Amino acid sequence: MKVIIIGGVATGMSAASKLKRGSKDTEIIVFERTNEVSYGACGLPYYISGVNSNEELLRIRRADEFIKSGIDLRVNMEITTIDFENKMVTARNVNDNHSYEESYDKLIIATGANPILPEIEGVHSDNVFTLKSIDDAVKIKKAAEKANHITIVGAGYIGLELLETFTILGKKITLIEMADSLLPVFDPEISSIMQTYLENEKIDINLQEKVEQLVMSEGSVTGVITNKSTYPTDMVIFSIGVKPNTQFTNGRLNMIRNGAIIVDSKMKTSMEDVYAGGDCATVNHKLLGKPVYLPLGTNANKQGKIIGETLCGVETNFEGVLGTAIAKVMNLEIGMVGLTEKQARSEGIDFETTFITGESHAPYYPNPTNITIKLVYGKHNKKVIGAQLIGEKGVALRTDVFAACIHSEMKVNQLQYLDLGYAPPFASVWDVIHISAGKAK
Amino acid sequence: MKVIIIGGVATGMSAASKLKRGSKDTEIIVFERTNEVSYGACGLPYYISGVNSNEELLRIRRADEFIKSGIDLRVNMEITTIDFENKMVTARNVNDNHSYEESYDKLIIATGANPILPEIEGVHSDNVFTLKSIDDAVKIKKAAEKANHITIVGAGYIGLELLETFTILGKKITLIEMADSLLPVFDPEISSIMQTYLENEKIDINLQEKVEQLVMSEGSVTGVITNKSTYPTDMVIFSIGVKPNTQFTNGRLNMIRNGAIIVDSKMKTSMEDVYAGGDCATVNHKLLGKPVYLPLGTNANKQGKIIGETLCGVETNFEGVLGTAIAKVMNLEIGMVGLTEKQARSEGIDFETTFITGESHAPYYPNPTNITIKLVYGKHNKKVIGAQLIGEKGVALRTDVFAACIHSEMKVNQLQYLDLGYAPPFASVWDVIHISAGKAK
Repeated sequence: MKVIIIGGVATGMSAASKLKRGSKDTEIIVFERTNEVSYGACGLPYYISGVNSNEELLRIRRADEFIKSGIDLRVNMEITTIDFENKMVTARNVNDNHSYEESYDKLIIATGANPILPEIEGVHSDNVFTLKSIDDAVKIKKAAEKANHITIVGAGYIGLELLETFTILGKKITLIEMADSLLPVFDPEISSIMQTYLENEKIDINLQEKVEQLVMSEGSVTGVITNKSTYPTDMVIFSIGVKPNTQFTNGRLNMIRNGAIIVDSKMKTSMEDVYAGGDCATVNHKLLGKPVYLPLGTNANKQGKIIGETLCGVETNFEGVLGTAIAKVMNLEIGMVGLTEKQARSEGIDFETTFITGESHAPYYPNPTNITIKLVYGKHNKKVIGAQLIGEKGVALRTDVFAACIHSEMKVNQLQYLDLGYAPPFASVWDVIHISAGKAK
Repeated sequence: MKVIIIGGVATGMSAASKLKRGSKDTEIIVFERTNEVSYGACGLPYYISGVNSNEELLRIRRADEFIKSGIDLRVNMEITTIDFENKMVTARNVNDNHSYEESYDKLIIATGANPILPEIEGVHSDNVFTLKSIDDAVKIKKAAEKANHITIVGAGYIGLELLETFTILGKKITLIEMADSLLPVFDPEISSIMQTYLENEKIDINLQEKVEQLVMSEGSVTGVITNKSTYPTDMVIFSIGVKPNTQFTNGRLNMIRNGAIIVDSKMKTSMEDVYAGGDCATVNHKLLGKPVYLPLGTNANKQGKIIGETLCGVETNFEGVLGTAIAKVMNLEIGMVGLTEKQARSEGIDFETTFITGESHAPYYPNPTNITIKLVYGKHNKKVIGAQLIGEKGVALRTDVFAACIHSEMKVNQLQYLDLGYAPPFASVWDVIHISAGKAK
């Protein structure tokens, strides 16, 4: 069997590694457009801030290690076309433009996504950035050394992580977000806590503003013009989302509207012998029972591993994701899993919610801090279907507790009495998780 | 309805509060032998060490607050006998010895447990202690001021928490444990990590030693003699377990061998209209499907709340506990939930285990530390039935994730792909939880 994998980061290299371990005789060729493989994109903000100054730590596994394991990894190679009928790809060397064809028995598309840039003049200037690759991070880190005032456009996870980054670096920051709240995927009761915190930290937050124009001077951007105001700036970073990198498939695979390739629970696409996973593909949502677009490293790695197992003949039953996401923004942790109220509403689900604030641990151990939880549960079946948490500590891993409960379709009354651990440094006798479930009707 | 509650700490006051809120007209009399109600016993080690120097924080709710809410709380009152046939208790004022009778419609026994002392001469000396009440803690704190060398007998949770306490206070410590490992409820692969850590911290650990005699001088203990050696000491603390305080029931209720009152899922005893909960009673183990003795604050509070709800007419379905326990010992966190290997074996369960060590979070965020996990799962049904964890951070709340999985009868292959959160400061793309499940066959 000959397997071609397009893309050598999370999904691609996970699939390749799993497949090589499970099926030694399979010929595996990985084409990677850049010269970086298998790196930790989520670690880039910490590299820019210098919290981690070791660039090498971002490289999870090096190209030569994959090659040594028997994977035919070809970097700086872009796939320009796929001939699905004859099972053939055309690969182009991005350095010398030399092209050649390669046949496959099975094809894995793991080409990821590209950061979205607005279609306005100046977005390709030398002081306008997006953050995806190690190379991007190196460039931003260098540019930030000379910049005093940095504008971040987009207040999602990456935007807020970069806010932390540039706060650590002592920069003046302007944050611009089109939606009416930070982290718009959260319900406003939760995201407003983040907003109040950042406002107290004197961060300049500008909501419901859309960047319409960039002020240019000698080829560089010197200001950002929105529908409401003009902001002088030394550099701009756009973190307004990503778009699946799937144009080269020429519309031959079933996709959702944003161009993500639809895959089933084995990561099979609509085309025989073609698999996809990671940021270029959908992922099945366990609660919604349908493919959604959630370009996260966790999903990418799981999908890659499952493709590898499937091609080895291992029967893996992937039950889908819950949309779990956690982040640290300065002194706050924030997490979500399952459905928010607005998602539940838009999906037409009958739901109820609870909203509580409690302490991270017992009062008789020093420095308990507040944790606020919004719980979403089925109005009739009482199953927990969503949780959003925010607080100074103990939020990220409590999000995982809810993940286990939601995956298992636990009911609020079961969760209310769940046997969670108690010790004064870590929790109260009744943990905030219990309290959030106990408030349910 | 007239309800008498014997014991005013966790179970008793939880039941009283829930009942009062849910059924205003119910007459509730609580007899408490001491003058302390509703305090956080688990906070006592931190009060002794001075990590928390505010004694008031240990009192979760004060007597006058309960009385103001309409509960007839009578402190310094001991119940000497119960006339189950005529539904009558005899109460004795411990200060003036005055006795009187009180009738009940429903009786709740929440008398807790007493620390066990070995039956050897000198255990009642003024420098020999057990730790249960605030009064015990005050006495230990005071005695420790003058003591240089402290001997702790028993290396369970309380023994090890006190080890931390006296380390903070700069004392020389001798730890004596009868079993062949610290924290004998854990499997040795996990407890040995704790042992190695404490040995590196220069703690004098003496396993498989039984205290046989105390060396006395002028009414005080000056040494501890075990089956192996003699240890000079300035004070001794016994933390070798507790015994249910149920002798006053005269064997009229069904009990397990140690004297804990057997209760069902509504905390009903074998006697009509008599309920029990907390450290004087059993609790139903969800996995074992039988009553076990697990005298923990979490169980006591839950049982109290359920008794309160049941007496209010609320139908509560308590599915039982998992034996979850977490603790902090100096720089280590340790946690367990469900069955250990030795428990699974003694229960005749067909099981398999995995044993892994991984990092608390991604390498590209500073200071990841090791977490070691031993997972126990059903050999045939592949259900996760137990987890033990140890490491410097992120252990306690990960124990809760396993609690949710075990309660829900999740299988290892589901857990391996569970949608846990990922952000470099908190976790890796594949969390140690995933890895522990992924190693299962």
